[in-house]
Amino acid sequence: MIVTLAGGVGAAKFLSGLVQLIPPEELTVIVNTGDDAEFYGLHVSPDVDIVTYTLAGVVDPERGWGVRGDTFACLNALGAFGYETWFQLGDRDLATHIHRTYLLRQGQTLSEITAAIARSLGLRTRLLPMSDQWVETHIVTPAGTLPFQEYMVQRRAADPVEGVIFAGATEAMPAPGVLEAVSGARGVIVCPSNPIISIGPILAVPGIRAALRATAAPVVAISPIVAGAALKGPAAEMLRGLGHECSAYGVAALCRDVVDVFILDQADAALRDRIARLGMRVVVANTVMAGPAEKRALAAVALQELETQTKQG
Amino acid sequence: MIVTLAGGVGAAKFLSGLVQLIPPEELTVIVNTGDDAEFYGLHVSPDVDIVTYTLAGVVDPERGWGVRGDTFACLNALGAFGYETWFQLGDRDLATHIHRTYLLRQGQTLSEITAAIARSLGLRTRLLPMSDQWVETHIVTPAGTLPFQEYMVQRRAADPVEGVIFAGATEAMPAPGVLEAVSGARGVIVCPSNPIISIGPILAVPGIRAALRATAAPVVAISPIVAGAALKGPAAEMLRGLGHECSAYGVAALCRDVVDVFILDQADAALRDRIARLGMRVVVANTVMAGPAEKRALAAVALQELETQTKQG
Repeated sequence: MIVTLAGGVGAAKFLSGLVQLIPPEELTVIVNTGDDAEFYGLHVSPDVDIVTYTLAGVVDPERGWGVRGDTFACLNALGAFGYETWFQLGDRDLATHIHRTYLLRQGQTLSEITAAIARSLGLRTRLLPMSDQWVETHIVTPAGTLPFQEYMVQRRAADPVEGVIFAGATEAMPAPGVLEAVSGARGVIVCPSNPIISIGPILAVPGIRAALRATAAPVVAISPIVAGAALKGPAAEMLRGLGHECSAYGVAALCRDVVDVFILDQADAALRDRIARLGMRVVVANTVMAGPAEKRALAAVALQELETQTKQG
Repeated sequence: MIVTLAGGVGAAKFLSGLVQLIPPEELTVIVNTGDDAEFYGLHVSPDVDIVTYTLAGVVDPERGWGVRGDTFACLNALGAFGYETWFQLGDRDLATHIHRTYLLRQGQTLSEITAAIARSLGLRTRLLPMSDQWVETHIVTPAGTLPFQEYMVQRRAADPVEGVIFAGATEAMPAPGVLEAVSGARGVIVCPSNPIISIGPILAVPGIRAALRATAAPVVAISPIVAGAALKGPAAEMLRGLGHECSAYGVAALCRDVVDVFILDQADAALRDRIARLGMRVVVANTVMAGPAEKRALAAVALQELETQTKQG
């Protein structure tokens, strides 16, 4: 079993390449739920949904999130009732949140529900939320401490980042199966996701970081930072704001204790030796996933490294 | 203030005529909530919504319920998750139910929420649910005791009716303002709604029937049965199944203790004397509301009777 740690769009793109190369049922994805939020009383799990919709082939290909061709009649009507509508929940997408909320209120856990939704959409890959408990990422800014979606979507990640808080993380437990998946994996891949607010919350759930350190499986990470910039989202500003180097090196330093192999982009080949001195094998590849071929090629590099490391181990 | 008792489509048609003749803010509508149901964890108040949407001018004119031009993307997606979708909740309509459910969970009462939704949609008429407590109409049939919407919508009112239960009614209280509205009214109109499952639940809430008996205001009722048949819905089968005469007389007999004036259709003019012997003034009119002119004309007859009775009183 291959186990991956995933955030949203970047991870989903990578995973859609990966399932071209391995049987989907041999993949377990541990997904960040620190971005989860309630809108109008409905529980939304943005990263889980992005991964689910992408692997189900129904994601909006332009935006990378939401359902392809979705409409916004319900959201517009909610707006007429005076609600804020900056978080763009489409009509079909809302069915997922109504479904999730209904099952949560009936006492099902987020991991049970995540599995049920994935099954309903035809996925054979195993999706695990990082935790069944509520962990909420907050961004500390000069304008105040903001819930993640408010910082990210409503205010368009425009505020300087002075700190990040994973509220609830210290009391959260890994979702059932998470630790077992990591310890029993044939290989672990940290997807090219924001290291601070996508991978960070997963590693903040007590036990997961230790399981990654302890697993016999090789751990491969792919840098989401290319030439000092994030391909998507606020990772660069966050790294800088929190005092990390805004580069593939900065990303590698954040996960040096868990990662065996670090894949960075050709544009960052010059960082190879510095990162190697963190104690990792460094691999240079094309990490910019412009299309299906690039996604598959990057997945192939990661799989190859898992294979090589396993043989060497 | 004119006070009306209302069910769904028939009442809403009548009320849309009434607000052409009196200032909308001088009208209070007490609406049946015995049809309320939960779908996917969302609280749906069908009769309240029908009246609200109709008076707001956004109702689907063909069906008499739901929002004009609504789409069903969310419902279809819920169907794909395995839910039953026989209760046709459109995307815009769903916003109302998400809104209501959200406010209920925040601790607001159904009457506060009903007023807020009406205001949002521009209504100046006062809408009161009959009760803030849960009252649930069940229909006893040979196939078992069915929640009302299951009997009515899912099974298309095809089961013989052996009994009707208003679960919760004995412990329910009239919503705030209901008793005061009845006792302080200038006139009360019982809309042409199903006497068993639209008006019946309202009268079953302890205190409302007594308030109607006690009010100094004249009470006018309009028969929803014309020539032995209901213009819409299962009223005829219900009257028969429960041992009542299936006619305007049967309707009048059910509310003889509260009604002063009974308006029946020209087609039923022959019933005039029998109904008069129940102790009511009987008025013959055209009660079939084919279009706006007929709605206004019927409302004018009812208002005229209130006027006459008040002068005589």
